[in-house]
Amino acid sequence: MRGRFISLEGGEGAGKSTQLKQLAQSLRARGLDVVETREPGGSRGAEAIRTLLLQGEQERWSPRAEALLFAAARADHVERLISPALERGQWVLCDRFLDSSIAYQGGAGGIGKDAIMELHRIGSCGLLPDRTLLLELPPEAAAARARQRDGGEADRIGARNARYHAKVAAAFAALAQAEADRFRRIDATGDADQVTERLIAAIADFL
Amino acid sequence: MRGRFISLEGGEGAGKSTQLKQLAQSLRARGLDVVETREPGGSRGAEAIRTLLLQGEQERWSPRAEALLFAAARADHVERLISPALERGQWVLCDRFLDSSIAYQGGAGGIGKDAIMELHRIGSCGLLPDRTLLLELPPEAAAARARQRDGGEADRIGARNARYHAKVAAAFAALAQAEADRFRRIDATGDADQVTERLIAAIADFL
Repeated sequence: MRGRFISLEGGEGAGKSTQLKQLAQSLRARGLDVVETREPGGSRGAEAIRTLLLQGEQERWSPRAEALLFAAARADHVERLISPALERGQWVLCDRFLDSSIAYQGGAGGIGKDAIMELHRIGSCGLLPDRTLLLELPPEAAAARARQRDGGEADRIGARNARYHAKVAAAFAALAQAEADRFRRIDATGDADQVTERLIAAIADFL
Repeated sequence: MRGRFISLEGGEGAGKSTQLKQLAQSLRARGLDVVETREPGGSRGAEAIRTLLLQGEQERWSPRAEALLFAAARADHVERLISPALERGQWVLCDRFLDSSIAYQGGAGGIGKDAIMELHRIGSCGLLPDRTLLLELPPEAAAARARQRDGGEADRIGARNARYHAKVAAAFAALAQAEADRFRRIDATGDADQVTERLIAAIADFL
């Protein structure tokens, strides 16, 4: 039986990587075989593209080139890691996926959702997660958490200004509304274990 | 007045880089301001992507990921180098452009022409050369020239088998037929200076 594909989405500092680890532990404790991965990256080729995307000066890539690089990394990740794992019956938990490209390059970068979806169709046969968990945090709380985590050293995209990140948050909220079947909006405030419980509740129908 | 955009196309060993240099010299002798460039690469970001594309083992990238990486490099090259040069009135001579992606990833790689055109529309606003000069050489002559040039060390794509390169040649010929206004098929046999004269004749209407 095919495994479940779950993506975690949200802005910088929403707690995605901590929650991904805790969610994976909780699912393993239920006897599931879980693969943890992330974007951009997750496979060997995609990690090489990640380095191009997250290093260097702010204007290194235009929004168009950036969108194509994300789509190339995702194509490699889907073909080499995600799809084979799902076919083996493993669950795949992914820290960011397509919806980040829609919110960041599509929304905040101005490329538009249709172009991002078209790149995804060409690169990854349009593969969608079975469920997407959107971690939501008030902007001030997210910024404080991101600063703490990075020790003041955000990557090339995380370092963009508050206006860019407000557009990202608005794009995520619009996506969650437009695709209510696939998305669940998760309150990411409070204790990490409490947030993990909310995530488990949001995929309870798969368990 | 906007400059002219000329691309040179053809398989490995057709003599594109030698001809590009000679054509540029000839145009400069006519008083034109000429920029010589190449793909993949030509701008700083695109050259970084070139390294990912041309190095490593044969199966490093799937055809889909490869097509997206070429489109990303082209988007950077067009936006940062080609379009600004044309707007300044310079002529741009480019060793390979979109048609190589159509022939290699689209034709020989099986992605299809429509997908490559769609990536080009999203990445580079569909920019086409004013003229494309297709250098044609019998396969045995091209293979001998490529071996000589590379000292037996072809790059990741040049090293593909004869069947792949035959598909590339067939895809180029089909393109030249389908877009006869833009393409000129050039006999690339014989002395290099003779070939350059054929190229000049093929753009005489622009001079």
